Amino acid sequence: MNYPKIIIDLIECFKKFPSIGEKSAERLALSTLDMDDEILNLFAESLKNVKKKITRCKKCNNLADSDLCEICKHEKDRDTKTICIVEDPKNVILFEKLGSYHGMYHVLDGLISPLDGINPEDINIFSLLDRIEKEKIKEIIIAVKPSIEGETTTLYISKMLENKNVKVTKIAHGVPLGVEMEYLDSLTLEMALENRKDVA
Amino acid sequence: MNYPKIIIDLIECFKKFPSIGEKSAERLALSTLDMDDEILNLFAESLKNVKKKITRCKKCNNLADSDLCEICKHEKDRDTKTICIVEDPKNVILFEKLGSYHGMYHVLDGLISPLDGINPEDINIFSLLDRIEKEKIKEIIIAVKPSIEGETTTLYISKMLENKNVKVTKIAHGVPLGVEMEYLDSLTLEMALENRKDVA
Repeated sequence: MNYPKIIIDLIECFKKFPSIGEKSAERLALSTLDMDDEILNLFAESLKNVKKKITRCKKCNNLADSDLCEICKHEKDRDTKTICIVEDPKNVILFEKLGSYHGMYHVLDGLISPLDGINPEDINIFSLLDRIEKEKIKEIIIAVKPSIEGETTTLYISKMLENKNVKVTKIAHGVPLGVEMEYLDSLTLEMALENRKDVA
Repeated sequence: MNYPKIIIDLIECFKKFPSIGEKSAERLALSTLDMDDEILNLFAESLKNVKKKITRCKKCNNLADSDLCEICKHEKDRDTKTICIVEDPKNVILFEKLGSYHGMYHVLDGLISPLDGINPEDINIFSLLDRIEKEKIKEIIIAVKPSIEGETTTLYISKMLENKNVKVTKIAHGVPLGVEMEYLDSLTLEMALENRKDVA
C-alpha cells in the first residue's frame, strides 16, 4: 500500500525541484493537507501561469512581464551610462535591495564553463557590444561570483571590450565583514592578501 | 525594483511550507521557470484538488480517497486481529515499505502533549475502544516515537486498555543498527541499558 495517487503526484512534483529529495517531498506534499484553500489556489494559479507571464527583458535579459523589465522601463530615474553585469536575475534583486546602485544591469544566462559545454555564445554576452554602442555606456561593472567560471567570464568580457571606449571594473573580492578569520577558506584569504591596499 | 508579481506570489506560497525560508522560497520559485509545462500543470491541478480528494479512513484514520483507506479496503489479505498505532499517516507508509507487518493500523492525530494543549480527546484515541470490541482485536502494538509525548501517549493508551482483553505491546527502543556508539545521544544509551536483554 502506498499514498493515494494525488499525494504521490504531489511528491513527484516537489521532487523535480532542486535540492528536494524523497523525504522532504513527502513532508511537503503531506503538509498541503493542512494549508488554506486560498493559498493552494493561488499557488496552483501561479504555477500554471508563471511561464506564460514571465519573459526576459529585451534590453537587459532581466525577468520581466512585458517587453522591458521594471528597471529598463524606468530608466529615466537611473544612471543609464553604467551597466552592472550579473549572472542571473536573482542577483539583480540583491543589488536592488542594497539601494546604493542606480545604474542599469545586463543579465547573463550563467557563466562560461567549457567543462560543462557552456561557451560565450550561450550566455548572452555578445548583446553587450550593441548596448555599449547604442546606449553610450561609460562603465561596465562585472559582478559575478569569484570562481573559476566567474574569472573566465570576467576575463572574456574584459578582452572583448579592450578596444571599446568603456571602463571595465569588477567588484572587490576579499574578506567579508563580520566573519571570524579562522573560519575563512584559504582561497579567499589568499585573494584578500593579493589584493591588499595601502592604508590611507 | 522587485520580482514580477507572479514570482512574488510563488515565493510567498513556498514560504508557507514548513522549513522553507525566504532564500529557499526564492530559489524554488525561480526554478519553476525552467520546468516542463506538463509538470507545472500536474502540480497546479494536484494542489487545487488535494484537499477535496483526500479524506480520512472511517475505520483507521489513515489517508484515503474514499470512505476506507487501501488497507482497510483489502483487509481480507491481512491479519485483522492486530492493530499498530502510529502517530501520523507517514508512519503507515514506513511500516508498509518494510513489508513484514501484515496487521491493521490505527492512525492518531499526533501525540498527547499537555504543554501544547493537546489532550487525549484531540488525537483520535477513543475510537480505539470501539474497534477493539467490534473487530475482536487481540494485540495492539504502539509504534510512536520515543519522546516525552510518545511515552505519555503510550502510558495513556495502556492504562485505557488495562481491563480490556487485549495484549498491548510497544516497539523496542534502543541502539539502532549501524551506528557508531560514540555518536549516540545519552538518552538512547540509557534506554538501551535499561532495556537490556539476556544473551541467549
